Amino acid sequence: MNVLVINAGSSSLKYQLLDTKTREVYAKGNCERIGIDGSFVGHEERGGEKQKLEVALPDHKTAVKYVFQILDEGGFDTAKIEGIGHRVVQGGWYFPESKVVTDETLGWVREVAPLAPLHNYAEADVIEICRDMFPSIGNVIVADTSFHYNIPEKAWRYALPRDVVDKLHIRKYGAHGTSHRYIWRTTNQFLNGDVHKLVSCHLGSGASLAAIQDGHDMDTTMGLTPLDGLIMGTRCGTIDPATVCYLVREGGYTIDEVDTMMNKQSGLLALSGVSSDSRDIEAGAEKGDKNCQMALDMFYYRTSQLIAEMAQSMHGFDTMAFSAGIGENSAEMRLGVAKELEWLGVKIDEKANEVRSDDPRVISTPDSKVKVLVVPTNEEYMIALDVEELLSK
Amino acid sequence: MNVLVINAGSSSLKYQLLDTKTREVYAKGNCERIGIDGSFVGHEERGGEKQKLEVALPDHKTAVKYVFQILDEGGFDTAKIEGIGHRVVQGGWYFPESKVVTDETLGWVREVAPLAPLHNYAEADVIEICRDMFPSIGNVIVADTSFHYNIPEKAWRYALPRDVVDKLHIRKYGAHGTSHRYIWRTTNQFLNGDVHKLVSCHLGSGASLAAIQDGHDMDTTMGLTPLDGLIMGTRCGTIDPATVCYLVREGGYTIDEVDTMMNKQSGLLALSGVSSDSRDIEAGAEKGDKNCQMALDMFYYRTSQLIAEMAQSMHGFDTMAFSAGIGENSAEMRLGVAKELEWLGVKIDEKANEVRSDDPRVISTPDSKVKVLVVPTNEEYMIALDVEELLSK
Repeated sequence: MNVLVINAGSSSLKYQLLDTKTREVYAKGNCERIGIDGSFVGHEERGGEKQKLEVALPDHKTAVKYVFQILDEGGFDTAKIEGIGHRVVQGGWYFPESKVVTDETLGWVREVAPLAPLHNYAEADVIEICRDMFPSIGNVIVADTSFHYNIPEKAWRYALPRDVVDKLHIRKYGAHGTSHRYIWRTTNQFLNGDVHKLVSCHLGSGASLAAIQDGHDMDTTMGLTPLDGLIMGTRCGTIDPATVCYLVREGGYTIDEVDTMMNKQSGLLALSGVSSDSRDIEAGAEKGDKNCQMALDMFYYRTSQLIAEMAQSMHGFDTMAFSAGIGENSAEMRLGVAKELEWLGVKIDEKANEVRSDDPRVISTPDSKVKVLVVPTNEEYMIALDVEELLSK
Repeated sequence: MNVLVINAGSSSLKYQLLDTKTREVYAKGNCERIGIDGSFVGHEERGGEKQKLEVALPDHKTAVKYVFQILDEGGFDTAKIEGIGHRVVQGGWYFPESKVVTDETLGWVREVAPLAPLHNYAEADVIEICRDMFPSIGNVIVADTSFHYNIPEKAWRYALPRDVVDKLHIRKYGAHGTSHRYIWRTTNQFLNGDVHKLVSCHLGSGASLAAIQDGHDMDTTMGLTPLDGLIMGTRCGTIDPATVCYLVREGGYTIDEVDTMMNKQSGLLALSGVSSDSRDIEAGAEKGDKNCQMALDMFYYRTSQLIAEMAQSMHGFDTMAFSAGIGENSAEMRLGVAKELEWLGVKIDEKANEVRSDDPRVISTPDSKVKVLVVPTNEEYMIALDVEELLSK
């Protein structure tokens, strides 16, 4: 099935057109600065160069129209698009699995938007635009939280007053669910169904872990929001929640300033003082920059601690998979994390770890108690599969 | 040495008079509702009954005076008190170890008070009162954070902007340091120096873990404040810090209300809906109360996850010690936590676990990879030892 996958932000719109049968990507790109001066589209066709198209994009509707226009101009007949998959950051309590767009499900995306105000409203708008503009194409909502919705209550519940958590729907929602689902599926296929307890490590500029036992998610490191858990590019990850109160009371910051600080000005960026990009930090550490080295040390330390937590939630682990920007590309950071875990039976084959490839691969030694893999993630493909499954019904 | 140990809160003052040589406690008690109507002292002498003495205590000075008066009346000549040990909740960046009271060290207790405003100011006042009232007795400050001050930087540093953490002295301080130090010391003595990597579990209404390797603290679960880490009697423990922002933004709470909610109305109390006391919750679960059962399940789950984190910070553990109210008295809750850890080599001897005693004891099976003990804590004795050591110099 030809599926267009859309991932909208408040001023951006990523898209990818692919065939679920062949897994071929016809085209992909990103509309940026929507509603802001200087908007443009970075567009790439199969086998072609990436091009930057400067074009006025006053709103998301214009952006969607433009995407269909460039696809047609590139020679792909958009009449052949059979489904559109919409990545929704926060599905709240309504999306334990993906759902076809209806008035009701679209309303749900808006209803849970207070949990992710920067994303859900824009995504709901784009879903509505697509439905209205192309009434013959089916639309499907794929929430990034769905995979985590069924983790055990002892893992998702917060020990806050019950009336408060009930009224405000506070719980662990997690994120990167579609990626973790893909990583489980691919790892298990690659190892011929021999995976029982997997710690899935989605390590990108946003990063999270999932404990997946026989395909069921048991726990994850992100929480009510994607701030929680690991130290990320610009996010602080787990810290004493009273730090927020202290920053307001003693630092004089507003609650929004603290929110922005924790989400945008913290993490590897704050530790290194150099960059949120792990490549810059590795380079800095290489040159002897102590803050960059501390950023790496803390990343290894916290990531390994939370891997131990995830393993604990399954009473052990037999497989670990690295994925996303850092997980797929940084042999150094994979090794840094894995070395911390030797006492739990993780042994990396350093040569295998250095191999670069777009395919899943094992990087542990044959005698490693825990199999360690690199598994390039593919959320768009996973979303397209959901679209195909739901629209085929 | 005869040492009086004092632990002052904003409206309370606990005291214990003991001899460091014999470890004998001559008397102990608690002045309550200082500065509030209905103040009284619960007082107990060696071999005697606990008595409730109703007495007007308009301020801490009156309370200190009264304590010395009842000690004298009870037949202990307070002129024989050779040192006073003051438990300070938050030592901030000034107390990597205990220190004799001087104008300078007393000033430090007040300087770091914004980190623990409810405690440090009262404690500083009481230190000053004791020094002025009994100029011939030496006073020593024993901070509950000292033991954690030297954990590695990668464990104490927060990934927040460096200028902010530097200016506001934000880091992991931890708490229960004196108790963890005592637990290490006692466990290691009891096992004839054969302890290498200990996870110390101080589980009371406040609860924290410490990873202690060869006597050095490597990590702990409390953070900037004692809110962080485990689920406690009324504290929520670690949750996504963005929850605080969400509660203010969507719940309409003030920052102080959220602080109070997380510290006083959460934890086991909120989960069970019954009580913050683990005995009531065990009884409720026994009767089939589902919320009580969930409170226990979550306590086991989170405690075991954080034990795995502590073990991770040392790349393993050979010993685990339960202590404090729950750790010393609840065989059921010890077993609940320990059972989660079987995959890491923890095996409990269920019969030994049921034994009640005031002495340290092993409760794991002979073939358990990890030795598990119950070690009754004694912070007052540890404080008195510090007083003796510093005043003997």
